[in-house]
Amino acid sequence: MSTEATSAIKVPVSGKSANVSEKKGSKKNGKIEQVQFTLKTPKGTKDWADKDMVIREGIFNSLSQLFKRHGGVTIDTPVFELREILAGKYGEDSKLIYNLEDQGGELTSLRYDLTVPFARFVAMNGISQIKRYHIAKVYRRDQPAMTKGRMREFYQCDFDVAGSHDPMVPDAEILAILVEGLTGLGVTDFKIKLNHRKILDGIFQVCGVKDEDVRKISSAVDKLDKLPWEAVKKEMCEEKNQPEEVADKIGEFVKLNGSIEEILSILTKNELLSNNPSAAEGLKEMQILDTYAKAFNITSFISFDLSLARGLDYYTGLIYEAVTAQSAPPKDADQKKKNAKTDDEDASEYVGVGSIAAGGRYDNLVGMFSGASRSSGKAGASIPCVGISFGVERIFSLIKARLESQQFKVRPTSTQVYIMAFGGGEGWNGFLAERMAIAKKLWSAGIECEYLYKAKANPRKQFDAAEKSGCPVGVILGKEEYPQGKLRVKLLGTGENDDGELIDIDDVVEVVKSKLKDGNVDGVDEVTRLLKGL
Amino acid sequence: MSTEATSAIKVPVSGKSANVSEKKGSKKNGKIEQVQFTLKTPKGTKDWADKDMVIREGIFNSLSQLFKRHGGVTIDTPVFELREILAGKYGEDSKLIYNLEDQGGELTSLRYDLTVPFARFVAMNGISQIKRYHIAKVYRRDQPAMTKGRMREFYQCDFDVAGSHDPMVPDAEILAILVEGLTGLGVTDFKIKLNHRKILDGIFQVCGVKDEDVRKISSAVDKLDKLPWEAVKKEMCEEKNQPEEVADKIGEFVKLNGSIEEILSILTKNELLSNNPSAAEGLKEMQILDTYAKAFNITSFISFDLSLARGLDYYTGLIYEAVTAQSAPPKDADQKKKNAKTDDEDASEYVGVGSIAAGGRYDNLVGMFSGASRSSGKAGASIPCVGISFGVERIFSLIKARLESQQFKVRPTSTQVYIMAFGGGEGWNGFLAERMAIAKKLWSAGIECEYLYKAKANPRKQFDAAEKSGCPVGVILGKEEYPQGKLRVKLLGTGENDDGELIDIDDVVEVVKSKLKDGNVDGVDEVTRLLKGL
Repeated sequence: MSTEATSAIKVPVSGKSANVSEKKGSKKNGKIEQVQFTLKTPKGTKDWADKDMVIREGIFNSLSQLFKRHGGVTIDTPVFELREILAGKYGEDSKLIYNLEDQGGELTSLRYDLTVPFARFVAMNGISQIKRYHIAKVYRRDQPAMTKGRMREFYQCDFDVAGSHDPMVPDAEILAILVEGLTGLGVTDFKIKLNHRKILDGIFQVCGVKDEDVRKISSAVDKLDKLPWEAVKKEMCEEKNQPEEVADKIGEFVKLNGSIEEILSILTKNELLSNNPSAAEGLKEMQILDTYAKAFNITSFISFDLSLARGLDYYTGLIYEAVTAQSAPPKDADQKKKNAKTDDEDASEYVGVGSIAAGGRYDNLVGMFSGASRSSGKAGASIPCVGISFGVERIFSLIKARLESQQFKVRPTSTQVYIMAFGGGEGWNGFLAERMAIAKKLWSAGIECEYLYKAKANPRKQFDAAEKSGCPVGVILGKEEYPQGKLRVKLLGTGENDDGELIDIDDVVEVVKSKLKDGNVDGVDEVTRLLKGL
Repeated sequence: MSTEATSAIKVPVSGKSANVSEKKGSKKNGKIEQVQFTLKTPKGTKDWADKDMVIREGIFNSLSQLFKRHGGVTIDTPVFELREILAGKYGEDSKLIYNLEDQGGELTSLRYDLTVPFARFVAMNGISQIKRYHIAKVYRRDQPAMTKGRMREFYQCDFDVAGSHDPMVPDAEILAILVEGLTGLGVTDFKIKLNHRKILDGIFQVCGVKDEDVRKISSAVDKLDKLPWEAVKKEMCEEKNQPEEVADKIGEFVKLNGSIEEILSILTKNELLSNNPSAAEGLKEMQILDTYAKAFNITSFISFDLSLARGLDYYTGLIYEAVTAQSAPPKDADQKKKNAKTDDEDASEYVGVGSIAAGGRYDNLVGMFSGASRSSGKAGASIPCVGISFGVERIFSLIKARLESQQFKVRPTSTQVYIMAFGGGEGWNGFLAERMAIAKKLWSAGIECEYLYKAKANPRKQFDAAEKSGCPVGVILGKEEYPQGKLRVKLLGTGENDDGELIDIDDVVEVVKSKLKDGNVDGVDEVTRLLKGL
């Protein structure tokens, strides 16, 4: 069903109404006025329903299982936070935060992501170690772009590890989770671009960028996934006042990408960089990461890409982004050709496409809540963290497109059995109470079943309803058979015109279970199989 | 872990900050000022975590399965709606609606319940029939009462049937769902109080209440679950200007309760009432309902209670409320005795306790969005609806208390296997990459496992971590055994001091699966069993 339909309706409003928006349209003389408004959801939001909802629930389920497999626990934080909790965390994007009206009491805002509430939760409860996942909606007053799947209300699926651990151990597992999560959803055509903030900072330093300019040059580099180098260089030189030779030196570095091993071998040969304390620390960590990535057998997905910078200020170490050619917005007529799978394409071909998962290490965010001083940089109870956020709406679009291309029919309900009564003529009461009693038996056995909400229903209408539900088994109460303690159980949708199997009423649960098993029909497994692209 | 801990912290703030709440505390001279704020969640909200989260997810899962069993599909609507959608739906309680700040664009408010968004969804998409469930948070600026489980942000679990069907057919199934839902969660000590708005209206009419006074007299009756009859009578006579004889006549009716059969037999003998058109229609429907309730075998839970009125204006037919003695707030020292289960207690003993599920029929709400005129009462595209809302936070409290009384240990993680490396001395590297490789094997097989995030971990710390997680199986990589292609698999928490079973590395998935099966250990089933109170 369409969830974008809108219709203008007229609602009569009394002048006495206490409602603000209605008051606007009414004169204050008590006369009834007409206020017209459009029946729609707010800008940048939508209803989810029907098959889309089944697919999305399948994705959430797959990711929840993944997170649990890795020892994750889930938390649920309020949809709004005290406004001061969010303040100063999102830089320029703070203007996109939704505020709640001041109706007396505290000032609050809708959460902008799940990371800041997580850091607040960790600090507030004095937690020293946790692996938590959180699947929930976040809110951004962005310009919505429905076609690109960018909404003002959208889901994030986050997994984060907080706590002091040996270097790169949780980081490597997060990358394993990223690979396991995407492949588990049938998305295999992706690369993980990764980089290290400390190496990036070291590069800027050895190229001659002043310390106070590092963040803004980093944010210029961050645009390399959308702009060509020449445009980024221009921004560095003209807007951000860097000498051309500084920009050119940076340019030499940020064009590098390849396996961790390859890029490390290039960078470690650069003595200037190796001797830079920040870069040296980053290089050492990347070396450790390489060992763990090999243990997890995920190196084929990884591209160490020095152009990756990531926008958010709070990252302090490893950063990463999973990109797929599939998610590229159509740019030209060759798009379809580009979308075709190729096994040997390198990471550069993925440049410019949207990311489907991203994250990084942020060691100081919890400390901002635990009493750390932002101006001095001194740590309070700082809890290092590393995490990943799956872009579930984009992943949804990929999967939906795949299912459509396979002409796979997703069933919106889980109904397994439709209960029907056949009969007619003199004294026929429609067996409604009898159908209810059979339904009760099946429900009590955990079997999903329905029947037509009609006292006397004709067979055609009942079969139509069963067919519409797409359920595999029919149970039929015949006018003569039922009073003799008998029912028919019939496989539906087989195209065969048989009468089904005549059984004792008492055996209905057992027989239905066996038919469902024979037909290998299981709503959940179907969706799982389908998500995995099997 | 406590989620109510708060700590006052100091955060330095620059006067340049764009943040409103921070600006308040800072002088506008650019000097860094100290702003103190409390690290907490907004009033009436809380974080959910740890075991509470496991129990709550178990409840949601149980109810979702229930709703799917009855042919339900789920929808997801935005957390905020256009303000005019909510306007005029909640009477006096409209003042409890949370508004979003006017930041340019549309005026919006957080949803107050899931029913109005559902009606908006049905009308907007021109849906003629749907069985939908929705588990989501709603928002009310009420005075929070944490001890009673009343919060400003809380979950509702709703199932509603929209569409024109034969009388009382979906209504009866909703009652079956109510019984199945509560008993499926191990709550068996409850009564469903039910009544019919049309009978209630008929009673008021035959008692001499004027048409324009019916709603306010109904709302006085609604207080009978909290006040004695004398207080309600006083309100009717003194505040609502009814003659004493009218109130007394009403009093005769509203004290009636019993089985549908019993109450129907009393009411149908009352000629005045039987001849009232509204009451007659209601009585006919109750007669039909009785047949269906018997088919579903749920009559023992039902009490036809003429004192039930339900606050919301939009109900038009059958109304109901499930109450349990267990949820009674302690009033006196006898409380504990009262809480004890008794099989023969009648419905009157449940009076005054909180309801754990409630709902009713509302045939005109969708029509308000489809173009119906509220002043004239003429219907547009009116879609009759009937639904139930489970009070999941109260049910949560009941279940949690039960688990605590049984000293049942809920595990926060789903971890099944802890992977450990034993060794030491010269050349010992801690087998971290090796543990990762084994973990990868188990994850790929869908098995939940963890290992200590430490390169070289001592055996004691690894066992402690395994024990803390409460997982049933340990996999041990021995310094000598592992290089020979061997592992040990050991059942944990048995108290036995054995060395486990020595196996080939290649067999690890198979052996672990068999151990998990032997131990009959399954996190999900455990919670399910526990929720059912088995």
